[in-house]
Amino acid sequence: MSTTVETKHVEELDETECRALLAAQSVGRVAYVSAGAPMIVPVNFIVFENMVAFRSDPGDKLSHVPMRQVCFEVDGSDATGAAWSVIVHGFARDVTDALSKQFDELRRTRLPSFADFTNPSWLEIDINQITGRRFAR
Amino acid sequence: MSTTVETKHVEELDETECRALLAAQSVGRVAYVSAGAPMIVPVNFIVFENMVAFRSDPGDKLSHVPMRQVCFEVDGSDATGAAWSVIVHGFARDVTDALSKQFDELRRTRLPSFADFTNPSWLEIDINQITGRRFAR
Repeated sequence: MSTTVETKHVEELDETECRALLAAQSVGRVAYVSAGAPMIVPVNFIVFENMVAFRSDPGDKLSHVPMRQVCFEVDGSDATGAAWSVIVHGFARDVTDALSKQFDELRRTRLPSFADFTNPSWLEIDINQITGRRFAR
Repeated sequence: MSTTVETKHVEELDETECRALLAAQSVGRVAYVSAGAPMIVPVNFIVFENMVAFRSDPGDKLSHVPMRQVCFEVDGSDATGAAWSVIVHGFARDVTDALSKQFDELRRTRLPSFADFTNPSWLEIDINQITGRRFAR
């Protein structure tokens, strides 16, 4: 089996490319820990400075994301059909009081695919680590 | 604020529809807990009976997914532009010995976007709970 050749299809992306891919997306997924078990939720998000920011209603996400280490993921494929993914790790905070106005304004320029029309809180993840991979076909 | 009207845009999907949407995808995301922190990885997967199955190399995923409660997510958008997501919760197991041959065969019919060409292990998640939502524009 040509193991060596096959594993060459996976390429690590540098931070600049990861940040560009992240900023070009509007739907990502947040993973957090709730009662010891992992949970994923898709969210619409914006990137602002070193933050990934998204809105939250008062449910499970709002209870378990702020003041915790969370993970955020985006993926897609490029014109050549190569799939890629970018993963962010960072500490999350509720920034509703501090940044709602600014984030609402930024958000109006993006498409609200995942309906958070009425979600009152803004959460942000500080981008502490960002990594990415491309998987050539 | 027209809160009531706006929240009507979110529709809970029934289990039949969730399973149909899941089975039609080939890329999903697994969330697991590693050293207390959540982690997301995109994977190519197949659905077989009541299992979501994907391959794994010997890294972090293989150490932290089997014999744990994990979460699995797929999302997309339909012809009307409405986004949807389906989330699976279930217990994961390493089924390399039991099901590799069968799963390798099934897998050959799917596109390997996320390169797991050489990954020797097969993991599966028993679909214990499956829920989904559609977000109309």
